[in-house]
This record gives sequence, C-alpha cells and structure tokens, in this order.
Amino acid sequence: MRVYLDNAATTPLDPEVLEAMLPYLHNHFGNPSSIHYFGRETRAAIERARKQVASLFNVSPGEIFFTSGGTEANNMALQCSVRDLGVKHIITSPIEHHAVTHTVEALEKEGKIKLSFVKLHADGSVDYEDLERLLAATQEKTLVSLMHANNEIGILLDIERVSALVQTYQAYFHCDTVQTIGHYKLDLKKIKIHFISCAGHKFHGPKGTGFIYVNSEAHIKPLIHGGAQERNMRAGTENLYGIIGLAKALEICYSHLEEHEAYIRTLRDYMKQKISEEIPGIGFNSQDDGLYTVLNVKFPPNPKSELFLFNLDIAGIAASGGSACSSGSNVGSHVIAHLNNEPDSVAVRFSFSKFNTKEEIDFVVEKLKEMVPVVV
Amino acid sequence: MRVYLDNAATTPLDPEVLEAMLPYLHNHFGNPSSIHYFGRETRAAIERARKQVASLFNVSPGEIFFTSGGTEANNMALQCSVRDLGVKHIITSPIEHHAVTHTVEALEKEGKIKLSFVKLHADGSVDYEDLERLLAATQEKTLVSLMHANNEIGILLDIERVSALVQTYQAYFHCDTVQTIGHYKLDLKKIKIHFISCAGHKFHGPKGTGFIYVNSEAHIKPLIHGGAQERNMRAGTENLYGIIGLAKALEICYSHLEEHEAYIRTLRDYMKQKISEEIPGIGFNSQDDGLYTVLNVKFPPNPKSELFLFNLDIAGIAASGGSACSSGSNVGSHVIAHLNNEPDSVAVRFSFSKFNTKEEIDFVVEKLKEMVPVVV
Repeated sequence: MRVYLDNAATTPLDPEVLEAMLPYLHNHFGNPSSIHYFGRETRAAIERARKQVASLFNVSPGEIFFTSGGTEANNMALQCSVRDLGVKHIITSPIEHHAVTHTVEALEKEGKIKLSFVKLHADGSVDYEDLERLLAATQEKTLVSLMHANNEIGILLDIERVSALVQTYQAYFHCDTVQTIGHYKLDLKKIKIHFISCAGHKFHGPKGTGFIYVNSEAHIKPLIHGGAQERNMRAGTENLYGIIGLAKALEICYSHLEEHEAYIRTLRDYMKQKISEEIPGIGFNSQDDGLYTVLNVKFPPNPKSELFLFNLDIAGIAASGGSACSSGSNVGSHVIAHLNNEPDSVAVRFSFSKFNTKEEIDFVVEKLKEMVPVVV
Repeated sequence: MRVYLDNAATTPLDPEVLEAMLPYLHNHFGNPSSIHYFGRETRAAIERARKQVASLFNVSPGEIFFTSGGTEANNMALQCSVRDLGVKHIITSPIEHHAVTHTVEALEKEGKIKLSFVKLHADGSVDYEDLERLLAATQEKTLVSLMHANNEIGILLDIERVSALVQTYQAYFHCDTVQTIGHYKLDLKKIKIHFISCAGHKFHGPKGTGFIYVNSEAHIKPLIHGGAQERNMRAGTENLYGIIGLAKALEICYSHLEEHEAYIRTLRDYMKQKISEEIPGIGFNSQDDGLYTVLNVKFPPNPKSELFLFNLDIAGIAASGGSACSSGSNVGSHVIAHLNNEPDSVAVRFSFSKFNTKEEIDFVVEKLKEMVPVVV
C-alpha cells in the first residue's frame, strides 16, 4: 500500500480535469494567436477559462494573466513592481516560500530594494503591529509580500488586516496564495490585494500552469517579453491544455468547496487525534485553525531523525520535511529552522486531499506507531 | 475539408507523444522535488528526458534547462547575459521573432545595452561582412542574437560562420533555434553556440514547454528565482508531462529526420510548382534552400488584400500572414515590412508537417485558383 500525504507539494490530476484537457491534446491544437479557425477555437477556450477564473475571484478577466506557475507569478509581482512601480522597499517574512524569499534577496543583492522582515510570533503568525511600525517608518514606495497560508505549517494570514494596513500606508500588497487557492474563497472586490499568485497543480490541476492576478491599478510591464499574448503582458504561446485544466480544476474546487473542506478537515483532525492518543511525545507545528490541508507533526528528538522521512517512505508513506521545492537541495526547512522550537525534533508535514481516505490514515497511524518507538 | 498549413505557428501533438505523456497525467504525479517514491519516479523521468535531449545535441545534460517555452528561453539568454555576463552591446537583426526583438528593445530602453542591427540582403539573409564590421568596431562585451531560420520566410543562418566570427571577437552567441529544432541536426560540440532555445510545440510536442541550452562557459543566474529546480537555474515545479512530451517528440523527430524532411520537402516543392504553374503573377518570399517547412508566397497586389487570409480561412485553409505571436495584435508582419519588396503584395506563409498530404495541397491549390482571380 502506498499513501500519498504530500498534497501541499503537488496533487494528482483530477480525472475530470484531464477529461477537459484531452480535446485540446487531441484535436483542438491551434495556436491561440492564429487568426484562422484553428486559432480562434483555442483562443475562445482560453478566454472562457480566463472569465471562469476571474469570476471566482470577483475580478475582471483583464486582471488575470496565465503564467507557467506560481513561481513565475510571484517573480512577476516582485520583479516587475520594483522595475515598473517605483518600489524601493519590500517587507516580507522569513518563512515565505523560496519563490518569494530568493526573489527578494536577488533584488536586494542587485541593490534595487531595501528588504525588511516582519517579526513573527512563536506559531509563525505575523506580528501585525510590527508590520505597521515597518510601514509607518518608511518614506519609500513599499510592497508587502506575505503568503496567505504558509506551505509548511499552514499558519494563515489575516489578509483583510494586511490589506487595510497597506492601503493606509499607500503601499502595494502581494499575497502568495499558492497554497490557499482552491481551498478558500477570495473576493478581491472586498479585499484589496494588488497581486495574487496561483499554481494549478496544487488543487488537482495540471503542472506547468498558473496565473497572476494584477489589480488594474498596478501598471506593471512583462517579465517575459515577446509576442502579444496575455494582452502584451506575458509572451509565449499559451500552455493551452494547462490553462483549460487549471480553470476546470478551480471550477470543481469552488463548486464543492464546503464539502471538500469538511471532508479534508475530518481526515486531518482524525489523524491528529489518533496520533496524539497513540504516539507518545509528539507535538504540532500547525494549528487547528490554520490551512486545513496541512498537519505538521513534531516528532520527539531521536538519534535517527535524519532517517525518519526515509523510513516513512519505505513504509509506503509520502510526506514531507519541508517545501518540496527545496527538498532537492538537501537543506532543512527554513520555516521550521526559523520557528526553532525544539531544534532537535523532527518536523513532518502530512498534507491531505479529497482523494485521501480514512483507511489510509489508519494505515499511516499504524506505521507511525511501529516506527516511532524504534527511533525514539 | 479543413487543411492546416500553419505548422510554423504550432503543430498538432503527435499521438505517440501524448501516449508517452499520459502515464504522467494519470498515475505518476509526484512533485519531482519530493524525496519520496512519488517524487523519485518523476524526477527520474525528467532526468531521463534531459539526457535524451542533451544527447541529440551532443551536449552535457547539465547544460539543458527546461523552461515554459521558446520565448522564456530567449528572454533568459538575453536578459541574464546582460545582467550576469557583463554584456553591454547586443547585435541582432530586424527580422528576429518578437521574443528577441521586444526583449532587446526593453533592455535598450532600460539603458542596459547598446543595440545594433546587422544589415540584411534582399532575401533576408545576414550580411556577414557587416556583422564582422559591427563586432570589430565594438570594445564592449557583445552578444550576437540571430535566429537559425526565420519563422516567416525561412531564410537560414550560416551558424558555423557566425559561431566562428563570435569566437574571433570573444563575444557571446545566442541562436533562436525555435523553428529549426526537430528539423535540422545540430552538433553543439562542433559548432560553438552559447545559448539555443527550443519550444516543444513546434515539432509535435506539447505547448507550454521548451528548453534553453546554456554552454557551461556562460555562467548566468536564473531569470525566475525560487526553488532548487533545474539545478537552481529555473525555479518552479516542473511541467512534468510537458518535459516528457518534449523529449519524446524530439526523439521521434531525430529518429526519422531524413524521412520527414524528404516528405515535407516534396509537399512544399509540389505546392510551389503547382501554384507557380497555375496562378499568375505570384512570387515567393522564401527560398528553396531555406527552412524546408515553410513556403512564403507573394500574391499580386489587389484591393481586397486584407481579406485574403480571411477568405483562405473561409475556404478551410489555415495559413498565416506573419508570426502567430503577433497576429493577435493586428499589426502586419515586421519581417515582410522590413524586406519591403513590393509593399502592396500579399505575403502568405504556408508551413507544412509530416501530417500533411498531397491531397491537401491539391485542395489548397484549387481553392487558391478560385480565389486569386477574384481578388486580382
């Protein structure tokens, strides 16, 4: 038996999504920029997808730009704000995804911005008073880049509060929503955010596709220059099937949001309860009221800590020690390292989707019971 | 009947390519950066694809970086050379694809480079003596960006000659090979080029995927920052199916290269011969010894020129007036405008693939015979 509990890293493609993509992988292949029949039919499909996506966030289709994924969207928001909007100061947190931290660090290294890190509470939540102090103390055009939900520990941002603060201080607000899109409703008419980012593969859509929402007040120019695609904002022949799949996946998410949320919460809470009862000495890096797809467990320190994920894998359980995006580099989680509560404990992120089952959780709990005494 | 003769804009996905992609759209969905089973199997698939691609160009797998397509690859070569290699001068031609022209124009506008345009002969070919003059006259670190084959008129670059010149003057050479990859062999051990770019969808591979080859001597940094993907050179969860499909499509191209080339040449030459015989007053913007997938026909001037492509479309024939990437913007071809031989003539690019047939060409020739007298 193999159990996949790493849905914050990526999710399996929903068969319904693949079904929606297949006609575009088979017959409808025209370049959406071609003016003939083959192009017009794919152009129409892309614009339908854009309208669908825009309506889910209550924005104009003209504010949605398809990208190759969440990382490109985050880069676009950050790099283009600095280049085109006069942003000289970026306020962020030390536990953002590397798509944000490495981009702002590169901008700082190039001498283009001053970089400030907001203080965090012990649970990883933002110290909003410190954020206000930072905003109040700056004279330069500032962008605040804070993620909606942390991808490792699931802590949620009070986006309404940040949005209000940013408006008070006439700054820009970029919110990395990669982990929350498809899982939380977001009405961008009610909450003003200048940029949000999305990756299709985080909610059973395809990899290699995403979007950036750019509020019409933020007049950025392209990061990738060339053809007139995406209304001159993102050149390159569109990832047609990717865009179709992303829109379909989002449609499915938002038409079953409460149902999926309730189901996933039940799984997560069940696992939390079972391991709390049955495995001694554990704790949690995630909170009950955080991102409901994530349970970050703190296993007690042990001499074989480094082998814990490896042993989980051998037992057929896919979970994660941190962001998948940095796993390849064999560096521990910068998020857990920052929180640094009990540095010798082993943090494991289990993340759930609608395709997981209670039977899978039971299997995982049994395996953990076998493993933990061995390694303690 | 519908006939697709716009294969330089995009090509239908090869059913064999889709077959290779499907397992990754169904079951093998892990994030390639995850260290567990699900990630390891997709990581292995990506690295196999990289090795396959690298071997076709006789380069090291470490010099191939997958991107979202040809446009991103071109942007990466140009933007990162300027930022990271001290390039202060770019020599290019006025008939490059917009992915190059708009990028170098943006770099010039930002004050980062001096931009020079090499002279062209009447057929669109590069004046190599002028190129040498430009290289000899500059003291600053220079990059030459010239496309292997023009996407509209098919004129081919003498890449060996440009490579030799660039080495003599210690410059960098970026070659936009988007139209030739899959159609011409390229041994990068024999011909030194610093950067080439590729878009999967130009040779029956998937849209939304491509690669950049970066010669190991060119130490550029990422355009898109974030996770450690592509050995820290291109962040973002990989377009897994896209990469698998691109490698499969290339494998098919290069294992049947002579056969496909002979077949496509026969179709193109047949069409050229038929319309030359049967339609009065036509000429050609493409050459017999140019890119064999392209036939650019110069139809005689007529008062309904603007409707010509529209009428072709009504007749069921998909062809193009210029690059698809700029069609959306309703601006005429900058390539044809530059050549400017008979400005009132109507340029139509017919571009062929292995999936076209002689019967389709006969159909198109018949339709053209009906149309041209009407519009002349």
